[in-house]
Amino acid sequence: MWQPSIAPDAVDRIACVGAGVIGGGWVAHFLARGHRVTAWDPAPDAEDRLRRLVDAAWPALEALGLADGAARDRLTVVGTLEEAVADAEFVQESAPEDLALKSDLLARVDAAAPAGVVIGSSTSGYRMTDMQRAAAHPERLVVGHPFNPPYLVPLVEVAGGESTHPAAVAWAEEFYTLAGKTVIVLDREVPGFIANRLQEALWREALHMLAAGEATVAQIETAVTAGPGLRWPFHGPCSTFHLAGGEGGMAHALDHFGLENPWSRLAGPALTGDLRDTLVTGAAQVTAGRSTTDLIAERDRRLIAVLRALREAQA
Amino acid sequence: MWQPSIAPDAVDRIACVGAGVIGGGWVAHFLARGHRVTAWDPAPDAEDRLRRLVDAAWPALEALGLADGAARDRLTVVGTLEEAVADAEFVQESAPEDLALKSDLLARVDAAAPAGVVIGSSTSGYRMTDMQRAAAHPERLVVGHPFNPPYLVPLVEVAGGESTHPAAVAWAEEFYTLAGKTVIVLDREVPGFIANRLQEALWREALHMLAAGEATVAQIETAVTAGPGLRWPFHGPCSTFHLAGGEGGMAHALDHFGLENPWSRLAGPALTGDLRDTLVTGAAQVTAGRSTTDLIAERDRRLIAVLRALREAQA
Repeated sequence: MWQPSIAPDAVDRIACVGAGVIGGGWVAHFLARGHRVTAWDPAPDAEDRLRRLVDAAWPALEALGLADGAARDRLTVVGTLEEAVADAEFVQESAPEDLALKSDLLARVDAAAPAGVVIGSSTSGYRMTDMQRAAAHPERLVVGHPFNPPYLVPLVEVAGGESTHPAAVAWAEEFYTLAGKTVIVLDREVPGFIANRLQEALWREALHMLAAGEATVAQIETAVTAGPGLRWPFHGPCSTFHLAGGEGGMAHALDHFGLENPWSRLAGPALTGDLRDTLVTGAAQVTAGRSTTDLIAERDRRLIAVLRALREAQA
Repeated sequence: MWQPSIAPDAVDRIACVGAGVIGGGWVAHFLARGHRVTAWDPAPDAEDRLRRLVDAAWPALEALGLADGAARDRLTVVGTLEEAVADAEFVQESAPEDLALKSDLLARVDAAAPAGVVIGSSTSGYRMTDMQRAAAHPERLVVGHPFNPPYLVPLVEVAGGESTHPAAVAWAEEFYTLAGKTVIVLDREVPGFIANRLQEALWREALHMLAAGEATVAQIETAVTAGPGLRWPFHGPCSTFHLAGGEGGMAHALDHFGLENPWSRLAGPALTGDLRDTLVTGAAQVTAGRSTTDLIAERDRRLIAVLRALREAQA
């Protein structure tokens, strides 16, 4: 039975396999958290690009606060994948989004990394079940999907495949959380996970509008950034809908607005009693039963904070 | 031929017809901009609720800066729609989202308001063509769709119907802009306009995931607020995709990622040469031809500003 060889809070040495935009962002993040990082990327100019990326990110990381001992010179760039992972206590793979390539690469990482080490993949949407088939020890392979840039956006989506040991998923959840990330563990392997599916639905609706001449790129950008986008850093779609229902909350909003209007090319699911219950119960849970008045006051404080922050960042 | 009777920058008296969450938010906004506002709402407790809403919003509006002369006692609540609009220089209608009701109400507003006054509707998605049929002077009826809360979120989507005079659309664009809003004028009447279609596509994908047991309400909220939602106040989907393409920008991102992956229930449109051109040209326009390095540095500054602002607003 597979077991992790190190506690999540004891990890010092991290290997980053693939050091492009996402892999390089992970390198910057782990360095800022005080880790030693060994990176490998097959591109001929990879080291130069990686060090430039880390240098460009560093002022941001300093501004947010570095961990004790965090230093850019704790980064080592090596010539082979095997060297990169040989001593690793955790491996983050961030290769291009190609199933065969990732599958092959993960098998190589698995063959070269110490047996009890967890290996996370940055894949934006492949199921680990489909990526882990070629690996000799698939038990320790998990998805650890970040958002760009990984050194600033907190979200990491964690999911195991059919051959992943639950202990590896639990280890990854704890490790990423200790590394300062906000972690969602998926119960099911859904291609695209959660955030990318939501993002992709919005993007595809935008593409349809562009293709049909219904909006311009500039209008779509403004529609998001001057509109609902200002609320999305603190209220997701369910909280937004809950507040749109006023004192009646989600239940009132569902009964009042429904899903009948032709306001997206994506048809909604049937609003069954079960779905209604899920939404009403879920909204009550995420808002912790707080009153609408209280939630609105908090929303306004946050909106003002965001509006002011952007104004100042612009100036 | 219809002509406006007053210049947009000369407007003092505004009538708000319907004073619930959205109409009340407009009242608060216009008061904060220094206008005199007359409001009418048929609900028996409408005045109490409206004054509570304005009182609750006022600290936020003070924090962002009131216009000279702005005062809550410049609000008058009257007993009939006809009184509300009799002296108005601009009318904002924010009735419940019901086509027959709105159509009837707009006809009544039109019959009672001075001839040269523009009438804006807060509808979240109805086409003005479908709302203006009953009005005697449909030329001056426009959609002026805000986002909740209208006193903080800048976006207003403006669209005329088939019987709307272009001068009324132009007037509304100028008026809302002078009133501190960020205005998009739609060339076409698309139900749901632009921002609500994008928001609705995301919401429907979320509902499908909930209905299928693929995610919980709490996971969906976190997926947005800790993930892509943090970028949406300053980068819409096109800018995000442009930056995901690295130095190659939108063109590289399209050629590299495409739309093949099953990452939303909403199928994308065909990525024709025309659509590719629209996207590449549009992305170059909204990013004003700036380098990826420059755009990334700006994105990071803004992300840090948003993260810090939310941290402080929480504390």
